[in-house]
Amino acid sequence: MKTINVVRGFLVLLLLVAVMTPLTAEQEPAQLHLMPWPASLKLGAGQLSINNSFSLAVHGADPRLRKAAVIFLNDLRRETGMLPLDFTVTDSAEASLTIHSDRPSKEVQELGEDESYKLEVSAAGAKLEAPGTLGAMRGLQTFLQLVRITPQGFAAPVVSIQDTPRFPWRGLLIDPGRHFIPVDLIKRNLDGMAAVKLNVLHWHLSEYQGFRVESKRFPKLHEMGSDGFYYTQDEIRDVVIYARDRGVRIVPEFDMPGHSTSWFVGYPELASGPGPYSIERKWGVFDPAMDPTKESTYKFLDAFVGEMAGLFPDQFFHIGGDEVNGKQWEANPKIQQFMRAHGLKNNADLQGYFNQRLQKIVAKHGKTMEGWDEILRPELPKSIVIQSWRGPQSLADAARQGYRGLLSSGYYLDLMSPTSAHYGVDPFADGAANLSDEEKQRILGGEACMWGEFVSGENIDSRIWPRTAAIAERLWSPQATTDVNSMYDRLDEISHWLDFYGLKHNANRELMLRRMAEGEDSSALRTLADVVEPPKGYSREALATSEPTALTPLNRLIDAAQPESATARRFLALVDLLISGKMKPGTEIQIRALLTKWRDNDTGLRLLTEQSSLVAELGPLSQDLSALGTSGLQALDYLDRGEHPPEAWTSQQLALVQQAFQPKAQVLLMIAPGVQKLIQASAGQTITSMPIPKNAAE
Amino acid sequence: MKTINVVRGFLVLLLLVAVMTPLTAEQEPAQLHLMPWPASLKLGAGQLSINNSFSLAVHGADPRLRKAAVIFLNDLRRETGMLPLDFTVTDSAEASLTIHSDRPSKEVQELGEDESYKLEVSAAGAKLEAPGTLGAMRGLQTFLQLVRITPQGFAAPVVSIQDTPRFPWRGLLIDPGRHFIPVDLIKRNLDGMAAVKLNVLHWHLSEYQGFRVESKRFPKLHEMGSDGFYYTQDEIRDVVIYARDRGVRIVPEFDMPGHSTSWFVGYPELASGPGPYSIERKWGVFDPAMDPTKESTYKFLDAFVGEMAGLFPDQFFHIGGDEVNGKQWEANPKIQQFMRAHGLKNNADLQGYFNQRLQKIVAKHGKTMEGWDEILRPELPKSIVIQSWRGPQSLADAARQGYRGLLSSGYYLDLMSPTSAHYGVDPFADGAANLSDEEKQRILGGEACMWGEFVSGENIDSRIWPRTAAIAERLWSPQATTDVNSMYDRLDEISHWLDFYGLKHNANRELMLRRMAEGEDSSALRTLADVVEPPKGYSREALATSEPTALTPLNRLIDAAQPESATARRFLALVDLLISGKMKPGTEIQIRALLTKWRDNDTGLRLLTEQSSLVAELGPLSQDLSALGTSGLQALDYLDRGEHPPEAWTSQQLALVQQAFQPKAQVLLMIAPGVQKLIQASAGQTITSMPIPKNAAE
Repeated sequence: MKTINVVRGFLVLLLLVAVMTPLTAEQEPAQLHLMPWPASLKLGAGQLSINNSFSLAVHGADPRLRKAAVIFLNDLRRETGMLPLDFTVTDSAEASLTIHSDRPSKEVQELGEDESYKLEVSAAGAKLEAPGTLGAMRGLQTFLQLVRITPQGFAAPVVSIQDTPRFPWRGLLIDPGRHFIPVDLIKRNLDGMAAVKLNVLHWHLSEYQGFRVESKRFPKLHEMGSDGFYYTQDEIRDVVIYARDRGVRIVPEFDMPGHSTSWFVGYPELASGPGPYSIERKWGVFDPAMDPTKESTYKFLDAFVGEMAGLFPDQFFHIGGDEVNGKQWEANPKIQQFMRAHGLKNNADLQGYFNQRLQKIVAKHGKTMEGWDEILRPELPKSIVIQSWRGPQSLADAARQGYRGLLSSGYYLDLMSPTSAHYGVDPFADGAANLSDEEKQRILGGEACMWGEFVSGENIDSRIWPRTAAIAERLWSPQATTDVNSMYDRLDEISHWLDFYGLKHNANRELMLRRMAEGEDSSALRTLADVVEPPKGYSREALATSEPTALTPLNRLIDAAQPESATARRFLALVDLLISGKMKPGTEIQIRALLTKWRDNDTGLRLLTEQSSLVAELGPLSQDLSALGTSGLQALDYLDRGEHPPEAWTSQQLALVQQAFQPKAQVLLMIAPGVQKLIQASAGQTITSMPIPKNAAE
Repeated sequence: MKTINVVRGFLVLLLLVAVMTPLTAEQEPAQLHLMPWPASLKLGAGQLSINNSFSLAVHGADPRLRKAAVIFLNDLRRETGMLPLDFTVTDSAEASLTIHSDRPSKEVQELGEDESYKLEVSAAGAKLEAPGTLGAMRGLQTFLQLVRITPQGFAAPVVSIQDTPRFPWRGLLIDPGRHFIPVDLIKRNLDGMAAVKLNVLHWHLSEYQGFRVESKRFPKLHEMGSDGFYYTQDEIRDVVIYARDRGVRIVPEFDMPGHSTSWFVGYPELASGPGPYSIERKWGVFDPAMDPTKESTYKFLDAFVGEMAGLFPDQFFHIGGDEVNGKQWEANPKIQQFMRAHGLKNNADLQGYFNQRLQKIVAKHGKTMEGWDEILRPELPKSIVIQSWRGPQSLADAARQGYRGLLSSGYYLDLMSPTSAHYGVDPFADGAANLSDEEKQRILGGEACMWGEFVSGENIDSRIWPRTAAIAERLWSPQATTDVNSMYDRLDEISHWLDFYGLKHNANRELMLRRMAEGEDSSALRTLADVVEPPKGYSREALATSEPTALTPLNRLIDAAQPESATARRFLALVDLLISGKMKPGTEIQIRALLTKWRDNDTGLRLLTEQSSLVAELGPLSQDLSALGTSGLQALDYLDRGEHPPEAWTSQQLALVQQAFQPKAQVLLMIAPGVQKLIQASAGQTITSMPIPKNAAE
């Protein structure tokens, strides 16, 4: 066996793979498509065969370990296409895979439970050892990722892995408050989370636009605040068990005192304004907020938090606390009087008072309070956990003051950032780098956030996956695991491998494109869809022709398009190779093939624009794609002939590229930057990168 | 409005469509992709817009009707990508769609309940009238099929439909006995059934290879006879309600006295042989059979049928009764003695005795007995229903003797026949044509049968759909609805439209091909997969290199390949146009493009064969595809030049085609017949059709 340093070692590994299976650059696979990459890995020679006589032996008393083994075998069947009878659980010492784990997991999964494991695969069999059941679960997911088809059938390579997470809190926030997300989608996303070793589902259960949990104590919350779209308590309990069986904690969030219009539809007396209230349909920050000055508010919250504390077993209870604009407070004379009487100078003071009261209620019911940046006030105890949407500096400041925290700034999936951007965000960046070790311990990890304004059940998977796998790696793998190319190589494989877990980020995109092109060949539409991205940041609303609401259908190209175009990314990489003089055989041919396809795509798309209102808006975009194809091919011709184009042509083409990069039908044509580079190179100009146009990036 | 005769009218309609939207022959869509085609249809001008203010008004007292409306709105959302809040239920007279239905459906859905409906769509709104809730459900499915994307958004065309089914029993048999099929798959197939107006799920719940229902009375049935894969009684009740809400009856089958090995694992005393028994792993007809001579057998069955009669509310109870080989009876001296003592001359007499006893038990528990052809004996009462796997003649004979029956011969989906073959099978064919009207009434309909030897949860949808939609049309639509081209035009659209119902016949094929080509570009594999079919009839086992069992993985190309290659069918149609002199613009270009793609496909596939054991077996097949591409292109060249090829070339190519049509990796390369026609045409020979090779068709 050869010890491999994790980060640079991955490149060495790729070279080794290249020796074994000679492939062109673009086909080069990471032989080990592991994500997150383990803390330590040694690769040996040979492989363990996985066929229909595969057997599993489980040593350990925890019933959850046996359940994990059953889930694992089912996942292995999904991955390989094997049948229910193909794999067996055995007591034999000859088992293909043996699991040893002595310590049972806690009845309620705790923050910081040991998740480490050791996995040894030899040609004769594999051994997985873990101090606790959670570690065994993580190791089983690694084993699943090792399995692949080979010339000799399915197999796992001979390998030795020692692994442990960098951070104990690795989460994903899902927001059914804005658009309801049914239970089966929550479950399949829990499968995906387990696959990449995430361990917290942060369930954002109430918003201006909806209250999503059945409350037996206050039934008007879900009856009047949800449009009928809520989780029953039985469903919640079922999801909690489902998550627990996969090593995932569930932290509920009930956002208070703002983001709470839906509560007030049934219980207007909770609000600071007069009411009546109806469920909010628009997106944004709104005025309604709870009244922190009435004792009845705290009586309500005591009973409510008590009920929810019984429903959600996790130690942590998220109270939101963000974005209170204070307008209802300022407009309410009684509240103003209360503030004066209690020496509360401003709205922040008043919210601080509210949080103090709320914290005591949460603590009374045995829970630890968590909230967004805004709740951080010196009057609150050091036990609370701060979730930062403001950034690593804010997180570091909190840690210095003695508060635990986690990072979400930089991991907002709704902003449609490329995976590399999220991958580059580290909880120890900025101010955190200078923290003492003790202070650093207070930074628990991070959470990817899938805010719900523009996600439906149909496309939520495609906003979460595969990008979240890279965030999971950031939070699990050693800090030095930062090779972006390696990440993308593995991400492509993980994306399609998550299909076997039932995630629909790939399948539903096909479905959506087919709907747009109903009854017709959708290949021209797919070619266009492959190279566009939604606008970035919060610019979608600014680019909309009419204000989007909770009733606006999410069935257009912008909703089907991937947050990051893999095709455009590969095209740019090919162009960079070409203009840097590092071309490989086939580089130019591949560039020409892409450009030609784009140039010729408009004819096919035009047929669809005439028949479908959902395609009609794409006409100008499609013409731009065609024009960019032509432009790029001409630039290549100049490069091939070794002559510069006329200046007029160059400036015309560069203007075309600028125009083509402006959003149309709200989406961005992501091949523009690559074509600009080809034009600049053909003209002998300095090569520049194109920033996302201002109106499409906030 | 223009009244259109249903059958020939469809062609007229296509012509009308062609006037409105000029398209090439191959793109020509049926504007109305209805399946089953309604009994009467008038098409008007204009359309009803379906946008996010669509509303539904329901007039009728049946709570099932309101439930049907909720299911309908959800289906409409899936189809259009609209959101939960986009459609509303209203009492307004202005509703986009108004449903009227006075008569509540029966508490337990009955055979022959009225399923007729009348649907009027105008530009201002649609009205659906039905005597009963079942008819309203059928009409809602028709409405869903009418909706499509147009230049003005989603819309339904102005149309007037009066519709009623031809047969009252239109079923699908699913067999989880051989390979277990989980509940969620049963549910999504119920969605598919409802979409094409099928009304009976025949659930084949016990087999040699598995007993699939929890029995509280005899728990060793499921505990020892199922490998742990069975439906709990709660799940059964849930599925029964789910089906009821979609207008589908559920008829359970417990196959007796043969096909019953799995019963004997826990209860060997039921068998005619000594035991002990283990769950059967092989496929075929086996010896174990219940002992019809012991009173304890009937005591057991009385209690068992009683339990199951309570679980399954349907009036009909299927007892199987097929394929008893009698060997255990012949080998058992006590049974032989019993036969002599009771004057039972042969095994058929003994089974007749068993069925008489069983029929009384079934009747005692309030049910009507149903069984396969073999149970038809004069000693049984006329109330029983005969399901015929032998053919229409057998069915007609039964009807003449006063028995009710339904046809399954000709509708066996596991035989991998083309859709056109199933579509051509009519319950009134052969002997039935001469029946009196009263006798004809006894022919209740038919059932498509999805026998389970070679289906898994992963590929069962692709064996059932879309072919079953054409069988559903045969059983619903007027007898004269027989235009095969129209059927295929609509079937293509229905297939992709069923994707929105969650069926995975298309999505899982992609998944399976990706698995085979893991980590690599699978387009070459897809090109090959697109033109192959599994062998026909029962020839798969004969072509296998080792005997398939319940443990044989179903993850090869033969398992991913569609039962009927749409690409090969279209290629043959293009070739027929060309050689018949009826070419349209583009015909030859399309043929050349296909042949060129096939000729050049082997390079890409070869890369995969070197890396994946699942692709390795496809090497010779891929070379044949390439050779056929070359051969077809050469033949076209001769045709273009107007000269005959040398005789040696012709005979060499014809031999190649014959060889290429022999099964390889157990699959058939379905473009061979089209290429043979091109070669024959180029050589000026008589054009012949190629039969499926003997070893691949039984």
